Amino acid sequence: MNHIEDYQKAFIDYLDNFIQERHPKNLYDPVNYILNLGGKRLRPVLTLMACDCFGSDYNKALDAALSIEVFHNFSLVHDDIMDDAPLRRGKETVHEKWDINTGILSGDVMLIMAYQLFENYKPETFQALAKLFSKTATEVCEGQQYDVDFETRDDVSIPEYLKMIEYKTAVLVGGAMKMGAIVAEASEEDQDAIYDFGRFLGIAFQLQDDYLDAFGNPETFGKQVGGDIIENKKTYLYLKAKEFASEGDKTKLLDWFSSQPEDASQKIEDVKKIFTETGAKTATKEAVEHYTEKAFSLLKMLNISEEKKQVLKQFGLGLMTRKV
Amino acid sequence: MNHIEDYQKAFIDYLDNFIQERHPKNLYDPVNYILNLGGKRLRPVLTLMACDCFGSDYNKALDAALSIEVFHNFSLVHDDIMDDAPLRRGKETVHEKWDINTGILSGDVMLIMAYQLFENYKPETFQALAKLFSKTATEVCEGQQYDVDFETRDDVSIPEYLKMIEYKTAVLVGGAMKMGAIVAEASEEDQDAIYDFGRFLGIAFQLQDDYLDAFGNPETFGKQVGGDIIENKKTYLYLKAKEFASEGDKTKLLDWFSSQPEDASQKIEDVKKIFTETGAKTATKEAVEHYTEKAFSLLKMLNISEEKKQVLKQFGLGLMTRKV
Repeated sequence: MNHIEDYQKAFIDYLDNFIQERHPKNLYDPVNYILNLGGKRLRPVLTLMACDCFGSDYNKALDAALSIEVFHNFSLVHDDIMDDAPLRRGKETVHEKWDINTGILSGDVMLIMAYQLFENYKPETFQALAKLFSKTATEVCEGQQYDVDFETRDDVSIPEYLKMIEYKTAVLVGGAMKMGAIVAEASEEDQDAIYDFGRFLGIAFQLQDDYLDAFGNPETFGKQVGGDIIENKKTYLYLKAKEFASEGDKTKLLDWFSSQPEDASQKIEDVKKIFTETGAKTATKEAVEHYTEKAFSLLKMLNISEEKKQVLKQFGLGLMTRKV
Repeated sequence: MNHIEDYQKAFIDYLDNFIQERHPKNLYDPVNYILNLGGKRLRPVLTLMACDCFGSDYNKALDAALSIEVFHNFSLVHDDIMDDAPLRRGKETVHEKWDINTGILSGDVMLIMAYQLFENYKPETFQALAKLFSKTATEVCEGQQYDVDFETRDDVSIPEYLKMIEYKTAVLVGGAMKMGAIVAEASEEDQDAIYDFGRFLGIAFQLQDDYLDAFGNPETFGKQVGGDIIENKKTYLYLKAKEFASEGDKTKLLDWFSSQPEDASQKIEDVKKIFTETGAKTATKEAVEHYTEKAFSLLKMLNISEEKKQVLKQFGLGLMTRKV
């Protein structure tokens, strides 16, 4: 079994080789730009790791890993237009650096590229990868739409919220791992188990992101702590607080979440207090643990060595104990 | 061999059945809306016709035909955003009826749907269809980018223009026909010949569109005659006129094409005169005939009966003699 760093290095080499000048430049330069912005390359690493786990040469999964990364970046380009976001990884977003039309069309061509990256696999593998990809990509679009819809709804339930983050974020983690299993020709049982492992880990990861956005360490979190509160985002913390709060706290919470004060420090302090005192903070922490446990319980079902299961578990724990 | 109307009816029935309420509604209602707007359904009909020509039950090609139509409508939704177009087939465009974000995301999900429509084919057919689809869809995006780039360039050459319309329009006609051939398991030679037949017919069709936009019958053309002239579009007529014109006419043409007078009647009259007197009108007509002939010459290479070749030829002639 290889180390994370090996997968990362192999992937980045492969990506570097993929990034080439193509014409028309106004279509492909933005593609190269976003793919070059960096990031943790978490999803492609998971594809390689899964392939390795099931006893196949992980280099065989490089095209599938690249497909996942290209798709992920496609979704960032289009989401950034929809969110009117000026920055991505500290750099200008594509539609800021070029324009919205460029962002739309370059994104489109990336989605097609993601499918093309499966073309070197034999027909059965190609079809399995493309089917999984289409299902996953559709769910990511649906998740994005639910996220948009929730912005203007006051009655979002916890199950609806969980479905939204599952679709928007978690299925791609599961899909990335299952692709590695498909390339390695793992059994269907193993494919499904590694998919659910990734999916539950993805849900846990997103819930932890909600948690850390309010209660993370400002020095290591990377994003602005309290950002979700400033933007009135209906996260798991917020929905749980609304569920648990007394009438007084609920009114206070709803009041804060219908305002956007220039100086948000009092808002952040008050809302965090409500999150803590209602038990929403604890409930969110428990939900993170619950989904992490659900992920780990799936490892038992995998037909791989204990050593490999430990590698997957350590990777999951590494993700989940991040303070960043 | 069946009649065009048979293919059309079979396709529309299949499409009607495909259009169903899906959730989230804000994502899928726009998909259903644009697919329901009508249109000639030319591309899917070509897929069914090609399948039939190569001796296979054309119903087997319905999924591939639907994929082509869904892709075509995806490109309309995203192009209409980029062109800021308020109307499509006399109805509001998707981004006008909803908003730009909805147009982007609903378009994205349509592109994925187009791939999913191949899933019921066996792995080898699936891979062949998806590869052709990806290549074609990439070229359509590149053609759209060239079209955008050309708007701000003064030195577009005729070969560049021909490549642009080939990519933006013609490859999808060729691709639609080749898909029918793939489903029918025609030989590679036949697949390539029918692809080129469609591609050359597509180029001829687009050149004729340029021609009719200036010289079509206002009562039957459907679009506003002179629309391209009003919008200063660098069509084949314009590029040829620029090539052939005397210095005086060239200056006049460039002057008119750098203005947008409120009352365009004088502009249209003058420009059409230049198109005629420079020989650009005749040259465009000849180019239409040249590409139509190129298309028809490919029919010789097809391993199908003379009767079927005649059906393809009649269809091509029907397209090319339209006065509309």
